[in-house]
Amino acid sequence: MLIVMKPEADKAAVDEALERVREIGFTPHEIPGAGRTAIGITGNDGAISPDLFHGVAGIAQLIPVTKPYKLVDREAADSQTVVDLTHGVTVGGDKLLIVGGPCSVEGREQLLEAAHAVKDAGGNALRGGAFKPRTSPYAFQGLKEEGLKMLAEAREATGLPVVTEVKDTDTVSMVERWADVLQIGARNMQNYSLLEAVGECRKPVLLKRGLSATIKELMLAAEYIFARGNQQVILCERGIRTFETATRNTLDLGAVVMLKRMTHLPVIVDPSHGIGVWYGVKPLAMASIAAGADGLIIEVHPHPAKALSDGPQSVKPKRFADIIDGLSKIAPAVGRTV
Amino acid sequence: MLIVMKPEADKAAVDEALERVREIGFTPHEIPGAGRTAIGITGNDGAISPDLFHGVAGIAQLIPVTKPYKLVDREAADSQTVVDLTHGVTVGGDKLLIVGGPCSVEGREQLLEAAHAVKDAGGNALRGGAFKPRTSPYAFQGLKEEGLKMLAEAREATGLPVVTEVKDTDTVSMVERWADVLQIGARNMQNYSLLEAVGECRKPVLLKRGLSATIKELMLAAEYIFARGNQQVILCERGIRTFETATRNTLDLGAVVMLKRMTHLPVIVDPSHGIGVWYGVKPLAMASIAAGADGLIIEVHPHPAKALSDGPQSVKPKRFADIIDGLSKIAPAVGRTV
Amino acid sequence: MLIVMKPEADKAAVDEALERVREIGFTPHEIPGAGRTAIGITGNDGAISPDLFHGVAGIAQLIPVTKPYKLVDREAADSQTVVDLTHGVTVGGDKLLIVGGPCSVEGREQLLEAAHAVKDAGGNALRGGAFKPRTSPYAFQGLKEEGLKMLAEAREATGLPVVTEVKDTDTVSMVERWADVLQIGARNMQNYSLLEAVGECRKPVLLKRGLSATIKELMLAAEYIFARGNQQVILCERGIRTFETATRNTLDLGAVVMLKRMTHLPVIVDPSHGIGVWYGVKPLAMASIAAGADGLIIEVHPHPAKALSDGPQSVKPKRFADIIDGLSKIAPAVGRTV
Amino acid sequence: MLIVMKPEADKAAVDEALERVREIGFTPHEIPGAGRTAIGITGNDGAISPDLFHGVAGIAQLIPVTKPYKLVDREAADSQTVVDLTHGVTVGGDKLLIVGGPCSVEGREQLLEAAHAVKDAGGNALRGGAFKPRTSPYAFQGLKEEGLKMLAEAREATGLPVVTEVKDTDTVSMVERWADVLQIGARNMQNYSLLEAVGECRKPVLLKRGLSATIKELMLAAEYIFARGNQQVILCERGIRTFETATRNTLDLGAVVMLKRMTHLPVIVDPSHGIGVWYGVKPLAMASIAAGADGLIIEVHPHPAKALSDGPQSVKPKRFADIIDGLSKIAPAVGRTV
Repeated sequence: MLIVMKPEADKAAVDEALERVREIGFTPHEIPGAGRTAIGITGNDGAISPDLFHGVAGIAQLIPVTKPYKLVDREAADSQTVVDLTHGVTVGGDKLLIVGGPCSVEGREQLLEAAHAVKDAGGNALRGGAFKPRTSPYAFQGLKEEGLKMLAEAREATGLPVVTEVKDTDTVSMVERWADVLQIGARNMQNYSLLEAVGECRKPVLLKRGLSATIKELMLAAEYIFARGNQQVILCERGIRTFETATRNTLDLGAVVMLKRMTHLPVIVDPSHGIGVWYGVKPLAMASIAAGADGLIIEVHPHPAKALSDGPQSVKPKRFADIIDGLSKIAPAVGRTV
Repeated sequence: MLIVMKPEADKAAVDEALERVREIGFTPHEIPGAGRTAIGITGNDGAISPDLFHGVAGIAQLIPVTKPYKLVDREAADSQTVVDLTHGVTVGGDKLLIVGGPCSVEGREQLLEAAHAVKDAGGNALRGGAFKPRTSPYAFQGLKEEGLKMLAEAREATGLPVVTEVKDTDTVSMVERWADVLQIGARNMQNYSLLEAVGECRKPVLLKRGLSATIKELMLAAEYIFARGNQQVILCERGIRTFETATRNTLDLGAVVMLKRMTHLPVIVDPSHGIGVWYGVKPLAMASIAAGADGLIIEVHPHPAKALSDGPQSVKPKRFADIIDGLSKIAPAVGRTV
Repeated sequence: MLIVMKPEADKAAVDEALERVREIGFTPHEIPGAGRTAIGITGNDGAISPDLFHGVAGIAQLIPVTKPYKLVDREAADSQTVVDLTHGVTVGGDKLLIVGGPCSVEGREQLLEAAHAVKDAGGNALRGGAFKPRTSPYAFQGLKEEGLKMLAEAREATGLPVVTEVKDTDTVSMVERWADVLQIGARNMQNYSLLEAVGECRKPVLLKRGLSATIKELMLAAEYIFARGNQQVILCERGIRTFETATRNTLDLGAVVMLKRMTHLPVIVDPSHGIGVWYGVKPLAMASIAAGADGLIIEVHPHPAKALSDGPQSVKPKRFADIIDGLSKIAPAVGRTV
Repeated sequence: MLIVMKPEADKAAVDEALERVREIGFTPHEIPGAGRTAIGITGNDGAISPDLFHGVAGIAQLIPVTKPYKLVDREAADSQTVVDLTHGVTVGGDKLLIVGGPCSVEGREQLLEAAHAVKDAGGNALRGGAFKPRTSPYAFQGLKEEGLKMLAEAREATGLPVVTEVKDTDTVSMVERWADVLQIGARNMQNYSLLEAVGECRKPVLLKRGLSATIKELMLAAEYIFARGNQQVILCERGIRTFETATRNTLDLGAVVMLKRMTHLPVIVDPSHGIGVWYGVKPLAMASIAAGADGLIIEVHPHPAKALSDGPQSVKPKRFADIIDGLSKIAPAVGRTV
């Protein structure tokens, strides 16, 4: 059940409602909004009688929720969630988020070169993996904490907030210390212990859709993070696994359309993994924004041929600038700015 | 192998090359282009020695082709193929093709109302099914020839060329008589006898990708049509079958990107089947054009709630106009016009 | 709706019921059974009032059917359908049907050698394609009517009934003339005109599941054939298309289990296409029978290395004999005989 | 590269080879076998020159390995790996492993009742989840350590070794303390930190195939565990995610066939998750063994209707006994015993 408070309900009124939920044995989740506060209720097996809230003054409406997710459902918020990445960068509003950077942090020089290129091209956040979950145990696994420090240095140098993957519970606090946004990779979308751990963090989470995760399962994964109290979640469509082998994955822009209706969370797209070849990144980046996405995360590498991972799908800085140029022409058609 | 003729090669030079191919026991396929003619060779099992063409004057280049498709390969033409739908409508050039109309022709009045709405909104071709392949033998199967006649009447009334599905070899000549473009439905993409039959026609073919057809298989299906002499083929991405059930199909815009590189044929998108719900048609239509598609085919119904098929994914005329309005804003960003 | 007649209902009683169905404007389909006759009713949009059958003496029960298929539903028959392939061979009873033979009829000698090998190894029917639907227009397309005649000659020589594919409506009558069982290939499972055409035939139909067809769609394809009056349908699971590329297809034995519950029709399995490599045929053949399949169709070629199609998945006669030996050990565990 | 030692090579000879690998800068992995020892080499980017092993006496053969997995490859061992579950139960030999038990440990009474039923029916190991990764954060998440203690008690009472899931790195040591076999669930197959953690354990690992994991990725996940030194790995096919929705998953017995050829590790099947309905468990269990699987893991619950998870696919004890009875008839046909 969702409790929607009256616009004029003050802190005392909200507290009264929260307390009532606890009295009847369930867990309240306060979801503040621009115009009004909502309270999600979890812990109940079945329907909750509205009578139990009789006499609580500030309540405007009680909405029974039969969907398996509650807190991330569009109805749970009165407006689109805008996530703040720090350094003046947000996602979910009119201005598009454009994250660029290498798949892996490979060294100080490579990262700084890439960061400056992203900045110069007009990107507004930096990506780079310090912990790399790799299919083979013998592949490059990332520079770990050293890589995180390089990301922090690149942020200092460019002013771009930093997005980086966290791959296990053991390193959550370390990654949280250095990064601005914690990325959950596709293979970890249903690593529930990790979801709970980042749910305890106070930094935004970029949650990538799993290779074979349904839209509903992605919503539930976000719900795991929300249920622990972290309401700063960005969803990311990055392609799903299908029978088609001509592309690395099948980018599902229909999922972007559905998610924008189903949830108040911002939704971005990773066209690089979505197609797996550099020449396909621009058209799919354009398509993603046209479909309504709130932003993009794109693999940019100064020298793709030398990349330790994902070289074939990385674009060079010059092409990245060209992509942003293209986006600036598409954005106004969907009421956005770059 | 592909023979590329010199730009200055005249008819006699081309004929000489065609004759040489026949002499050595294979089948030549002449592919005229704006700047030069190419000749595809089929019937050979392995490589053909270039020596066999020694002394044929007009040949500029011999390209060995190891791909399973030859005639539809991008290298087989010197430029993008532009297909003429008659009535001044083409696809493959700068101007986008926008086909609208009901899933099924249900009656004279319904069709005329839809056709005028499509015309008024700015659509440039009319769709409507007279022969409906249906999953259930007990579902509405279409008005058949009567429906075709209604389509012809609607063309008279509006000047819009007519696209309609042909579902078996028995009715190819009947459909060819009334329609301007013969559509091969997704379930028939590998109905090879039907492909061969439309390959003998002299009207353009709109070939929809099969539900689980790879991009390569779609190319080969087009090759079947080409190999019989019909070079007026339009490819159509309409969503593939995946594990996701929140949308009717998974629209694969990565396929559009790949096809635009792989073939000289025009590629359009059916966002209606791609997502299966009316509210998803506009964002996916916008995304398709942003990804580089040459056009769209959209289900439009004056009264979706009464539609005999595909009601949930049909848009009303007013929304169709709104979609075209959106497209007119997106098109310039990709060098197109509506 | 299904009408179940009393066991003692005679022809007059059944005729009375059939007539009543016609009177109320619908189409009756008589489905004779060992113990009693059932009558399927089609043509109705919604539920039919049982009152309409008041006073028809021989009716035992009226079963409302909300499933999209009616005639092939298990409830429509009082017992498992046993299909007669002629020459004393049946499928659906205790004895397993084991069809063997080459993918394509390549020549008289090859076919006769294969046919004798199948016979000697204990197989009880012969397969061989005379019309080959091929992904590429340049691949071997079969020997056509000449191939059919060779199949008939092989039947004469061995006494094995002949199963062969029919790939379009134009050749249905030709194939029906020479073959004992008409096979509908996977790519044609939703070629409704072809389904209707074989539905008019009086020879059994072997209907292969489409590459991406759901179990329900396979049932509906069978319903198409039934609705035209041909009740001799054998279903065949042959693997579906998934993301896995290590095997040619993913054999879905869960589908066999479900189909055996859902329909009264016999269900066989094609392990050759199901895995795509010769060494996988035996274990999957064994598994299919253990899962409850009524038979198998296996590609056997005297010289797989020289096969014009499907060589890698064809087994040699000696291995085919070994497979049948293995089956004879498995069969008793599931109450079957070889 | 793989080093295969001579059968007569003693410990000193093996040590000499191990030392040589370290000298040249790589990591040796000793893989003891019944007849001879093999040494896998990892850490090398490209090919290793055989010359580097010149003069090391006990080496029989140097096998270059180009596959991405090395240690789990069939060639890396001279025989099928037999994993010891303790209490006299093994998997990989002639005798089938049959694990039964509830999805979740729900309470002491429920578990003991199930454990005795499994034992009485002829099962030889007990399953039961104490940590449950659930799609929804609001679903029952397991009894955690209390559940583990109940499993240990059930082992005491019945003598059945205990298989239970470990879902994160934080609880690996706790689960290792109480359980006999550590199960990695399908959603964690590519949780590499967890794979590394169980790779450090000295108890066997049951590794389930991910919902959309290829066979090759499953091999690589096992390689992760091996690379950390744990060579007691059991692979488990449990169905993959496809477009089919009539069954919970699509059981891929072709994968069993391929894995038995590709690796020396034992391969078992989970038919309960493979089909998702209780009545399908027996036929798919039979089929799995016929296909060559080394064992089964089956959900058994004394009162499925009251189960907190997976009730629809759980079989009652009586049916479990019937399944084992069926298996005892199938097993001899494939050279196995129950």
